[in-house]
Amino acid sequence: MSVLIAGSIALDTVKTPFEEHTDLLGGSTSYCAVAASFFSPVNLVGVVGKDFPQQHIDFFKQRGIDLAGLQIADGLTFRWSGEYMVDMNVRETRSIALNVFEHFNPVLAPGYAETPFVLLGNIGPDLQNHVLDQVKNPKFIIADTMDLWINIARDELSRLLKRVDMLILNDGEARLLTQQASLIKAGALIQAMGPRFVAIKKGEHGCLLFGENGDFFSCSAYPLEEVLDPTGAGDTFAGGLAGYLASTVKDKVTFADLRKAVVHGSVLASYNVEQFSLERMRTLTQKDVDARYASFQKYSHFEVIE
Amino acid sequence: MSVLIAGSIALDTVKTPFEEHTDLLGGSTSYCAVAASFFSPVNLVGVVGKDFPQQHIDFFKQRGIDLAGLQIADGLTFRWSGEYMVDMNVRETRSIALNVFEHFNPVLAPGYAETPFVLLGNIGPDLQNHVLDQVKNPKFIIADTMDLWINIARDELSRLLKRVDMLILNDGEARLLTQQASLIKAGALIQAMGPRFVAIKKGEHGCLLFGENGDFFSCSAYPLEEVLDPTGAGDTFAGGLAGYLASTVKDKVTFADLRKAVVHGSVLASYNVEQFSLERMRTLTQKDVDARYASFQKYSHFEVIE
Repeated sequence: MSVLIAGSIALDTVKTPFEEHTDLLGGSTSYCAVAASFFSPVNLVGVVGKDFPQQHIDFFKQRGIDLAGLQIADGLTFRWSGEYMVDMNVRETRSIALNVFEHFNPVLAPGYAETPFVLLGNIGPDLQNHVLDQVKNPKFIIADTMDLWINIARDELSRLLKRVDMLILNDGEARLLTQQASLIKAGALIQAMGPRFVAIKKGEHGCLLFGENGDFFSCSAYPLEEVLDPTGAGDTFAGGLAGYLASTVKDKVTFADLRKAVVHGSVLASYNVEQFSLERMRTLTQKDVDARYASFQKYSHFEVIE
Repeated sequence: MSVLIAGSIALDTVKTPFEEHTDLLGGSTSYCAVAASFFSPVNLVGVVGKDFPQQHIDFFKQRGIDLAGLQIADGLTFRWSGEYMVDMNVRETRSIALNVFEHFNPVLAPGYAETPFVLLGNIGPDLQNHVLDQVKNPKFIIADTMDLWINIARDELSRLLKRVDMLILNDGEARLLTQQASLIKAGALIQAMGPRFVAIKKGEHGCLLFGENGDFFSCSAYPLEEVLDPTGAGDTFAGGLAGYLASTVKDKVTFADLRKAVVHGSVLASYNVEQFSLERMRTLTQKDVDARYASFQKYSHFEVIE
């Protein structure tokens, strides 16, 4: 089945302690859509300016992503610039230029409204709600969010949470949203806000998945020695998760499906941080994905004692 | 098989944001030995003062711990006092009185030298080396350490690391010892210092286990909503791990054995923090241990994709 993905498309400037690159392909939709495309057909909703390089559009096309929902507006593409400190978990935003994104009105292209799986990438919850207003009978809705929206758009976010099946956010955001230091308590508190499923990303420490009736899954992170560029890791995780779900679920999404989807999201994210921007995704193969899925299994397995 | 456990025995005063208790049973040997006693016979090496309450000695005896190596010296028992902040991961030592521990000379009781498994609880590496000087043909030696020894007794610690099969330490200590932010790199660097196996404890994020030829295991933490007193969690982990190994290994310790041992150590530690001091260990049953082991399995399991 297909997955509808809405969010931002950006040109990023990324500085790490070792390298700096400008005008990289970025934005939540770009990462989500490319990751999801490894598993299922993708209907993309986003906006770019007239300056958006054709090579990035060609890359989306090569990944089989449907671009009927890609608006090309007068003006410049959304630009983001950020810097990572020596501890790559710490990032500072250096500048943001919304450009064409400032007046983005996410409109579903013909046929998109019936897409069974929906992934609302990280954009304002008003836009995420606006996308949901247009979909018809979705099977499963996933939303991503960030600290900015928790701080400045809390009401819109609360409204969104009542409409989605699953929320994905990181540990700091979960604590901010719930004012609760314990992530175990935070997961349950977020479920009480609406979503039946909550995934709390912990970066190098993996991911916690909360389900119904006390269902719980803890996914370890892949033991990477080196991270070249963490940008988009969370979006790639969400895209891989949503794409895998859409590819495998026949009827109702089960917790067993979600466990496997979380691991697939983690596999994609672990590859993506090995290079800048989405570069690693250009050469990634299904064989690579399967091999690392098997490694996740090997690295977390221990013998059952009857 | 039996495990020899050497370390400190203390009377602790512990303050959390909610409670304060004085003269609690504490010290690395106490936690290690009681945890190990759930799985295998324990030969204890330690020192207490004449003030040490008989009820604690009775508790050790009830757990079947061999106390031929317990010295009762003139003077007062080692005392430690610490305070936990609202974020229970942050602890401040308020006072230490070494008392009889200042002149502790760990001497093995008759018969102890042939104990096949050795757990050197967290005490100075000079004392740990002194214990190793007395053992004969041990099958497997595990050492625990802490930031204090990395800072003030680096040479003795380096000498120790060349003599042990496994080192257990926490994430901050691993980074301090290796001057390396990446725990994955830190694990390999510590192995290069001597121990074939390294366990890096990450508190609420679980534990990483590094083995030979790239063997790796990531054990998630049990999803506890509440931690009443984190004191001794690391010692309990080490004791549970060592005790389980001693109970199950027939010939050579394999990585599969160590995976199960790490989970058992995690099970014991997750129970211990539910109450102050070793209180939870007084009521813990084998059935409790087995039930939580099964939960660890359930919470980390995902389907293999062939």
